[in-house]
Amino acid sequence: MVYVKREQSDENREALLATASRLFRERGIDGVGVAEIAREAGLTHGALYAHFRSKGDLATEAFSQGLARSREAFRGKSARREHSVLGYLDYLLSPQRCDEPGVSCPMTASASEIGRHGKDISAQFAKGFQDKASAFEAVLDDAIPEAERHRLAMTIVAAEIGAMAAARAVAKSDPSLSDEISKAVHAVLVKASKGH
Amino acid sequence: MVYVKREQSDENREALLATASRLFRERGIDGVGVAEIAREAGLTHGALYAHFRSKGDLATEAFSQGLARSREAFRGKSARREHSVLGYLDYLLSPQRCDEPGVSCPMTASASEIGRHGKDISAQFAKGFQDKASAFEAVLDDAIPEAERHRLAMTIVAAEIGAMAAARAVAKSDPSLSDEISKAVHAVLVKASKGH
Repeated sequence: MVYVKREQSDENREALLATASRLFRERGIDGVGVAEIAREAGLTHGALYAHFRSKGDLATEAFSQGLARSREAFRGKSARREHSVLGYLDYLLSPQRCDEPGVSCPMTASASEIGRHGKDISAQFAKGFQDKASAFEAVLDDAIPEAERHRLAMTIVAAEIGAMAAARAVAKSDPSLSDEISKAVHAVLVKASKGH
Repeated sequence: MVYVKREQSDENREALLATASRLFRERGIDGVGVAEIAREAGLTHGALYAHFRSKGDLATEAFSQGLARSREAFRGKSARREHSVLGYLDYLLSPQRCDEPGVSCPMTASASEIGRHGKDISAQFAKGFQDKASAFEAVLDDAIPEAERHRLAMTIVAAEIGAMAAARAVAKSDPSLSDEISKAVHAVLVKASKGH
């Protein structure tokens, strides 16, 4: 019986993390409460606190899980896309991703919120940021000096985060501007990635 | 007496907008309630609803007022800085601004949140974004073809928004990465702004 209980407990934990991760991206960490997360995951409020000490803990773990899934989708073995600056930017700045904050990168979905929360979620963001920058650094032209490649990679990630946040921010009032922002940033980053 | 009352009413409205604008930037639109805004402005909850129909209305007006102040600080006549890409980026990506979300540009402070709110605040963001991009477009090298200048200007604004959000997000856990992000984006944008 202990085995079955543990399995159920793991499933509950996974359900809570997946629900929290989606809702935090869609509505913000401060925009959704733990009671609602538990309810949407089909569990009780008490069950949630059996797994996570606080909302902050849940947010940090959900953010970390979202980053891991996003990493897998972005650069994992199963990702059937060209591993190049262009291939990555086509994926990250697509209109489809703009429409789906709940399943896209949690750094992009929650960029301006993380600074208001704790040190643990900040550390997850730092890890995610460096990881994504490394992915770009690895596909940038070798001919570019290393220090410049590093700066370029960080700038590409920052610009992608800002572009997606801005594209989403203006989408309700000006869909064509939203589109224009993603396309402009895509074009300029592709050009800048050539490093000359 | 009507005159005095109107003056007092205008002052109350200004106090509510200034307080809301600062608190929304510091803690997010969903991170602060109207009761607290009224209290910090030294007014009652009821007084707030005499001026604004809803929290959404207050958020939109506070965002708009914050944008106007930020615009004045950034490119107004009183701004004692060089009107150039470098002058603008020195100002926008300074470490001091990173530490002071409550007084910095509301687009940067709330980037990832605006998409979750209404059409009116989205329209304010669109206006603010285009206005800031125009400021950059005006100081970019005339030798760059117009369409490219336009794309570059939008990319600079998106990258600055993303860089500042990321720099703030990692600051609690990794201050040196925070600094590195601002500096890298600054260097890359200055180079990219030369358009070749």
